[in-house]
Amino acid sequence: MTRIDCHQLAPTMLDLAANQAMVLAAIRASVADGAEIILVPELVLTGYMFATVEEVLSVAIPADDPLLVEWGTAAGGALVIGGFAELGDDGNVYNSAAVVGPEGILAVYRKLHLWDREKLVFTPGEQAPPIVDTSVGRIAVMICYDLEFPELTRAVALAGADLIAAPTNWPLMPRPEGERPAEVVILMAAARVSHLAIACCDRTGVERGQDWMAGTSIINENGWVVAIPGPDGVARADLDLTLARDKTMTDLCDAFGDRRPEIYANLYPGSVRSDPLTA
Amino acid sequence: MTRIDCHQLAPTMLDLAANQAMVLAAIRASVADGAEIILVPELVLTGYMFATVEEVLSVAIPADDPLLVEWGTAAGGALVIGGFAELGDDGNVYNSAAVVGPEGILAVYRKLHLWDREKLVFTPGEQAPPIVDTSVGRIAVMICYDLEFPELTRAVALAGADLIAAPTNWPLMPRPEGERPAEVVILMAAARVSHLAIACCDRTGVERGQDWMAGTSIINENGWVVAIPGPDGVARADLDLTLARDKTMTDLCDAFGDRRPEIYANLYPGSVRSDPLTA
Repeated sequence: MTRIDCHQLAPTMLDLAANQAMVLAAIRASVADGAEIILVPELVLTGYMFATVEEVLSVAIPADDPLLVEWGTAAGGALVIGGFAELGDDGNVYNSAAVVGPEGILAVYRKLHLWDREKLVFTPGEQAPPIVDTSVGRIAVMICYDLEFPELTRAVALAGADLIAAPTNWPLMPRPEGERPAEVVILMAAARVSHLAIACCDRTGVERGQDWMAGTSIINENGWVVAIPGPDGVARADLDLTLARDKTMTDLCDAFGDRRPEIYANLYPGSVRSDPLTA
Repeated sequence: MTRIDCHQLAPTMLDLAANQAMVLAAIRASVADGAEIILVPELVLTGYMFATVEEVLSVAIPADDPLLVEWGTAAGGALVIGGFAELGDDGNVYNSAAVVGPEGILAVYRKLHLWDREKLVFTPGEQAPPIVDTSVGRIAVMICYDLEFPELTRAVALAGADLIAAPTNWPLMPRPEGERPAEVVILMAAARVSHLAIACCDRTGVERGQDWMAGTSIINENGWVVAIPGPDGVARADLDLTLARDKTMTDLCDAFGDRRPEIYANLYPGSVRSDPLTA
């Protein structure tokens, strides 16, 4: 079993030092408690509600910044996954997430799908979500709005991911009474249809007038929510991530084996999108 | 607004005449009540728990059978969508669904993804789900286990469907207390990410020892369940199906416009499945 901790934090806008201290405290608490995979939210080092590109540039850091390396040092043998504003070699700023281990930075992912006003201040990524092969399982990383594209969640599962680890910043949206956040429903379905686990680490607090969903959830390979944050703001679950490698449902059914790829490749040749899932 | 009725019926195994009478009564009740789209379950004319191919052959009917035409006659101006065991010209038997209107049979779909023991008695389809252009909207048809493949639900949305109409026979499965059936969660997510409505018409009763989920649900284009069956076994909802044509979420976000098809086409070239969503 692998212990996963998601820290539903409330970053301070534009205060790298304060946010780094908050993240390091969260990591240390999880390590003391036995966690092996530790998530913190999207853009946890900077806050989210940027007004201008200049603001983002003032707190953007390179993908190999010592602040990120320090996450791994604090984590002992655990892995840390969290978001930051990345200053690229090209001078652009990306909404990125790093996977950091004791050896240093294992992977950096640039968000492919930018939500709303992110489009005004960030440059979208151009590379697939990394799938990091670790001693506890294969971990794919994506960020927030990415999760609403079944193309991506299905693809990482088919490529062999056991867990999707996703920092998020979900703005609070209305929903019918008694329902889970729509974003969580989408993740439950994504986990269920592809038999993999999903850990999403959302944020809380109010930032420049914006309220947040605080929807942090850990979802098992059957699609059920097994943990949400307790009073301390941490969602904790023990999962055997390798269960995601068995896609069978009955003696005669397999979630991947029952796919009809030869049919999917040419479903609606007469439509505007001749190959709907890739074109 | 378009009135949709889903009749959660309990067919009698192998009794075409009794099941046809039950379907016609359901259609007439809905027509009297103003419904414009009427759904009945998967394999409603035959029951589901076939023991042998010979049993299926004994109740399979051609795709232009008078029993199906009679659905349209009974429906006045409404559309009827429901399941039957189809005897193909090739001698094979398919788990099919028909869309029937006053003009006759508008489309027949052969289930692409066969669940469990269906594989022992049916031949899988080879054609994409039909999308029938009607005066109230564009209606895609798929059947039960098909809905668990995001390749298919996303594809019909991208091809322009406003509503997925899906006859189902969901076997009862355990779920955590307070949760919706996993199959319904999958549909809520499919509707939400692609902004289209979904009506699934499940069955009830006990058949040869099998209990059923009775999970009939009508889901709007925001992914929320707006109707489940009342005491009379009918789920009713009034939906403006054309709302599915607006995929915008904010001034800067569009569920389809924000897709990255050029990225999806080559996400994991090094993996076994080089194009995960189509290969």
